[in-house]
Amino acid sequence: MAHLYRNARIHQIFGANTDVGKTIITTALVRASASKQRTVQYLKPVSTGPLSDADDIFIKRYASDLQGNVLQTCLFRFRDPVSPHLAYNLERARNGDSSAARLKDGDLINAIRSHISEIACSSDQRMDLYLETAGGVHSPALTGTSQADFYRPLRLPTVLVGDSKLGGISTTISAYESLLMRGYTIDAVVLFKDDYYSNASYLLDYFGERSIFLTSLPLPPPMHSDPDENFTITKEYFADIQDEGYPEALVDHLDRTHMRRIEELHSMAGRASNKLWWPFVQHGLVKDEKGVTIIDSAYGDFFHTYNALPSETTPTPNLMENVFDGSASWWTQTFGHSHPSLALAAARAAGRYGHVMYPQAVHAPALNLAERLLEDGPGKGWACRAFYSDNGSTAMEVAIKMALRAYCKVHGKNMSVKEKEKLGVLGLRGSYHGDTIGVMDACEKASVYTCEWHSSRGFWLDAPSVAIRSGKTMVDVPESVSACFELAEDDFVFDSPATLYDVSGRSTSRLARCYEEYIKSCLRHLENQGSPRLAALVLEPLILGAGGMKFVDPLFQRVLVDIFRSTTVASPATGRWSGLPVIFDEVFVGLYRTGWESCAPILGVTPDIAVYAKMLTGGLLPLAVTLTSQHIFDSFLSESKADALLHGHSYTAHPVGCEVANTTLSMLREQASSTEWSEMKGAWCSPKTSNPRRQDTTMWSFWDPSFVNSLSHLQSIDNVMTLGTVLAIKFKGSAEGYQSHLAQSRLSSLSNNPDDELSDFAVHYRTLGDVAYFMSSLNTPLEVLRKLESKIISTLNNM
Amino acid sequence: MAHLYRNARIHQIFGANTDVGKTIITTALVRASASKQRTVQYLKPVSTGPLSDADDIFIKRYASDLQGNVLQTCLFRFRDPVSPHLAYNLERARNGDSSAARLKDGDLINAIRSHISEIACSSDQRMDLYLETAGGVHSPALTGTSQADFYRPLRLPTVLVGDSKLGGISTTISAYESLLMRGYTIDAVVLFKDDYYSNASYLLDYFGERSIFLTSLPLPPPMHSDPDENFTITKEYFADIQDEGYPEALVDHLDRTHMRRIEELHSMAGRASNKLWWPFVQHGLVKDEKGVTIIDSAYGDFFHTYNALPSETTPTPNLMENVFDGSASWWTQTFGHSHPSLALAAARAAGRYGHVMYPQAVHAPALNLAERLLEDGPGKGWACRAFYSDNGSTAMEVAIKMALRAYCKVHGKNMSVKEKEKLGVLGLRGSYHGDTIGVMDACEKASVYTCEWHSSRGFWLDAPSVAIRSGKTMVDVPESVSACFELAEDDFVFDSPATLYDVSGRSTSRLARCYEEYIKSCLRHLENQGSPRLAALVLEPLILGAGGMKFVDPLFQRVLVDIFRSTTVASPATGRWSGLPVIFDEVFVGLYRTGWESCAPILGVTPDIAVYAKMLTGGLLPLAVTLTSQHIFDSFLSESKADALLHGHSYTAHPVGCEVANTTLSMLREQASSTEWSEMKGAWCSPKTSNPRRQDTTMWSFWDPSFVNSLSHLQSIDNVMTLGTVLAIKFKGSAEGYQSHLAQSRLSSLSNNPDDELSDFAVHYRTLGDVAYFMSSLNTPLEVLRKLESKIISTLNNM
Repeated sequence: MAHLYRNARIHQIFGANTDVGKTIITTALVRASASKQRTVQYLKPVSTGPLSDADDIFIKRYASDLQGNVLQTCLFRFRDPVSPHLAYNLERARNGDSSAARLKDGDLINAIRSHISEIACSSDQRMDLYLETAGGVHSPALTGTSQADFYRPLRLPTVLVGDSKLGGISTTISAYESLLMRGYTIDAVVLFKDDYYSNASYLLDYFGERSIFLTSLPLPPPMHSDPDENFTITKEYFADIQDEGYPEALVDHLDRTHMRRIEELHSMAGRASNKLWWPFVQHGLVKDEKGVTIIDSAYGDFFHTYNALPSETTPTPNLMENVFDGSASWWTQTFGHSHPSLALAAARAAGRYGHVMYPQAVHAPALNLAERLLEDGPGKGWACRAFYSDNGSTAMEVAIKMALRAYCKVHGKNMSVKEKEKLGVLGLRGSYHGDTIGVMDACEKASVYTCEWHSSRGFWLDAPSVAIRSGKTMVDVPESVSACFELAEDDFVFDSPATLYDVSGRSTSRLARCYEEYIKSCLRHLENQGSPRLAALVLEPLILGAGGMKFVDPLFQRVLVDIFRSTTVASPATGRWSGLPVIFDEVFVGLYRTGWESCAPILGVTPDIAVYAKMLTGGLLPLAVTLTSQHIFDSFLSESKADALLHGHSYTAHPVGCEVANTTLSMLREQASSTEWSEMKGAWCSPKTSNPRRQDTTMWSFWDPSFVNSLSHLQSIDNVMTLGTVLAIKFKGSAEGYQSHLAQSRLSSLSNNPDDELSDFAVHYRTLGDVAYFMSSLNTPLEVLRKLESKIISTLNNM
Repeated sequence: MAHLYRNARIHQIFGANTDVGKTIITTALVRASASKQRTVQYLKPVSTGPLSDADDIFIKRYASDLQGNVLQTCLFRFRDPVSPHLAYNLERARNGDSSAARLKDGDLINAIRSHISEIACSSDQRMDLYLETAGGVHSPALTGTSQADFYRPLRLPTVLVGDSKLGGISTTISAYESLLMRGYTIDAVVLFKDDYYSNASYLLDYFGERSIFLTSLPLPPPMHSDPDENFTITKEYFADIQDEGYPEALVDHLDRTHMRRIEELHSMAGRASNKLWWPFVQHGLVKDEKGVTIIDSAYGDFFHTYNALPSETTPTPNLMENVFDGSASWWTQTFGHSHPSLALAAARAAGRYGHVMYPQAVHAPALNLAERLLEDGPGKGWACRAFYSDNGSTAMEVAIKMALRAYCKVHGKNMSVKEKEKLGVLGLRGSYHGDTIGVMDACEKASVYTCEWHSSRGFWLDAPSVAIRSGKTMVDVPESVSACFELAEDDFVFDSPATLYDVSGRSTSRLARCYEEYIKSCLRHLENQGSPRLAALVLEPLILGAGGMKFVDPLFQRVLVDIFRSTTVASPATGRWSGLPVIFDEVFVGLYRTGWESCAPILGVTPDIAVYAKMLTGGLLPLAVTLTSQHIFDSFLSESKADALLHGHSYTAHPVGCEVANTTLSMLREQASSTEWSEMKGAWCSPKTSNPRRQDTTMWSFWDPSFVNSLSHLQSIDNVMTLGTVLAIKFKGSAEGYQSHLAQSRLSSLSNNPDDELSDFAVHYRTLGDVAYFMSSLNTPLEVLRKLESKIISTLNNM
């Protein structure tokens, strides 16, 4: 929803407090702009109090004598001279419409956005637009939301009017900090010069140190009781300060910041191509700068990106695009970008602790987070310890180290160091646990994610996957698996996804027996081959993420865990191994990404070790945790320091991350009981599976069932599948896997900015070879999801 | 400097603005406390304006009729009725002492701290203390520093007096955010109830949602022109609100928060011992809760820790200790804990971006950081690309992956996948590069840092180390090295550390020839053995950190790089290898930790790949970067996606980390040109080495030369060494290495809280077996360093 036009400079005017002279300073700005022969638009979105006192009328009164074309607009006007949220309530009460639907933030922001677009795009003449807010930065908007939050979706460049009165140093700095914390760029601070309190002189140094432009204007004359006299002296004031050049210098500065911003954005793609080394990007294929996404800011589900070559449908095209973050920024986004609660949580911990030493120490954010995760989170009922690290990959390295030690403690008493080095893991083909080499070794080398030192240690099974194909929910059983058992269509076709995800209800099915046969035969084969011992089972529950967004039949994973735990297989080498321990990598699937806090209840088994990251911090910054059971922890206990888990990072349990995670978990808890979620669950929940006892393990999705069904019938699509926020679309006709550009090319028009910028948005999406996937945040509004669905359908229909 | 007393509850009163009724509300609090038969201390640190209007006099006037013992104190009083910083300047001008030394923040805070300690410790009677600040939260203190920053070292529990006037919603919320961002705990918000603006009703919901207690008091009567009448009605007001129970309810709430805080802190060691799994800690050795450091907050170089069993030297001991962070929180701290500029940088990026997708995208914080590092930072002159990851370990994994690919591109055309898996690195014995398994493999398995899957790939040389022993600067040459060449004492004893670190001046020395002989003979031996090919040289320049804080002779590293780069050694296997590429792991030593931005200029050679982390973010949160030269980058270029560097983390280049790093680099630049640094450099710089051309590569240290010299003569100490902020002390008489508890036990009294809490602090330090090390931030005040030095000396003398 951001705006940036080459010929139209837009600034919003915030006040450090009410009654600091916002309107007078804005009038001075309007006059200075007008004197440069430009069109000047003054926008007061909401005005309260009698018309005669209204700010737009003031502007009209004192800026109408100039050569430039000055236009004033007020979008919402209320007669009571109180804060907009109160005035709105009074008006509603007076009109008797207090029961009618209230205006929402989005409605109002859209009205403002439309107005700005309309006037900015209507002409290629040089134009300055000043939007004046009401009261102070946190004064409530009409809806009651603080203005600093309310206006954030537009993120307009900002002029802060400082407070020149006694106490004004404090209110000015605090207002500045509240704006900064919400990601606004403050192009200038302006205030009156009061020689007695000399706030301006203090603040000039203060903001100078912070490279913020500050200018001060002479104090306006005191209000005169005679209106005519008042008009005359006020006129004179404006004329005087204009003669002295104050407002013009400010306008020149704002012009420069505007042009610099465009130049800066314009240069970024080229500079980035020259200096950055992107992950997973073949720089040899980034042929020109158009392939680089320039992210100016982000809010909610949307990136605000710079478009150097916007379609020229209007005289002055908007250089900013609104792009839906369709990969939830690599599966991290939880409540959308730039959520003020998370920003404040980060600042709070940074201000109280910074980072502090963690071994054998404790601080509240780390302790509270551990307790929540273990006692009232994904570890509830089985986990007893929390070990922190920095990301999913390191947390999985920790998990592997824990599992190997636990295994060796029981089974490795006579093993040599070299034998221990050769211990393997059991996993699924297509697994992915991160990019550090230790966890790469826990995956097949055949995978695309490899490097020179990658030397796989273990064995990987073929896993059956879940698909909705032409409206039918089914399991695709690989030949290697089905070869073990004769299956009929009834065995792998289901009446609904909910039935398929009812693992316990399927435990005695023929498919369960088939899986058992296959897994046991693989293990027998391994044993006969004399393969290295298997020390751990490592699974991504429900979905193999980076490995192709493959939805694995949960029954298969359940049977696998049961066999791994119960079977004791004789090893040809030095004895016997029993199937311990089990690691769940829930970095991607956990914390409600797939609809549940943990996938363990879906499988009906708990792990010995589980790993969380990504959404743990609400999508703000890196932090990961490895949860473990008591017996894993006990494997490291002794009287010798060398037996300790010798793994740590400098920023282990950094307070900022832990505090943000605590805030995230509170917000998750609230979201999980929201009516939006109940509605979405209801849409997926057939009467048969709506048993309230099982409600919390019933399959559901953010994506509409009829949309998913429609997709699954499309000619170009092999199958689709969804769980929670995740939607995967597999295209027909490619066997190149990760190297394939099929999905990317089929959907490419989604990433184009729609011509009608007001009603629509472009979509950023990621593909994994022939699979395209889409992901929302946990609070993406339903109307955005529905719009996104129709964009996807129409793109695929137009192919 | 924090305070916490069981029997003395302390709250500071901050105002959302000036003139919001702080003194009236504080008076109400004082009266309510006094009515509970307690001693009440009212502290106004600084008062301005005529005595008759002073806040402490107001308190005296309206709270003297109560049964409790009410005492008022004002520490600094100025007669001009303006902000304290202006009043102080006026007073100085009047007294003609404007040239004399100004009061500093520390002096004033110490005066306040002394006062609080004195009155809190003097009696075990129940006492409430209210400290009233002046003006708004960011109003300048006497020194000109914003009060929110000024009072932060004490981090007293806070009552925020909200603003009930028009605009007061905004100023109250902004003030609250400024306080939160500085790590204050806000126990209550109090404001007057004005029915017209109804700020209290809005704010009650607002703070309720944030779990902050809010209470509102009836508006006080307007000031009466007749003083006697005014006294009477004001008295009545206080009596009335007391009758209605408002202030008492607030005092009860503050009592509860006080007790809850103590209970919470008291419980933390036990809860932590039950739930947390600490890195590098043998939980079997943490026998009781006393071994757990409870960190309540941190500021500057100090932790504020909770002590459950303080020494009972006073009737009411302070439960908070002031502990110097002697390991700089695992080598991360740069400008001390909780620096407001870093907290604000984090909040700013969180509010503008949150986290955003990075591959093939760009945002300003990541781009600016890359450009700074490459063009005006440690990569200047050789590096062309920046690759981000999350910590030193992952950044080293990236470095290894880059080096292996670059090697294979040149030398590995005919190598099989299995041969590539076996490629090795050349390094130094005792190296450490992190705890992910890939970089563990780049270190010797003999190291303490190992795990089951650790399988070393490469060869590690014995490195000579630098020591100051009995005042003499010398190189300890291992026998394996000296066996190659006949050395005289003159060859390894130096007239100063500066001479030793003049690597180019030593390039033709006999020691250089000795090193060359040793290294070449090792390489020949490897070749004859048919060892795996060496694909990269991996070095921690100057200091092997985690491997025992061993200062390696820089000449040895220089000779090694030269040989590795120039020699082409025939391999018995499939051909020849030439010594490429060279990786510098500067995670610990870089960014001025050892006094220089990069150690490359000291060695006189640049690497092909270098890694930075830890101080990159000023010690706030995890971020790392791998810098590379053009030819390394080019090794990954092709038309195939599978040839790309397939390494990435979800939060790669997270904007919060990058923005904090940009702020850090600006602050580093400023610090590097500070007079404090010039002074410290001067102390180490002998005339012989003070050649201005070489100034920036001259050895220097934060630790005083005479202190280091004294240490090196102590009976119990084998040797000491220092560079930049780092000091290492090696004790005599242990050969157990990492397992040794020698250094820990020798210095243990340092960690005890001194009896005289006002003048002193305890010291948190870390050891690596028989080596103790100490580390400061880059802005640790000289007086703190000197005090720390005398504590270390006196501890060792008392052994």
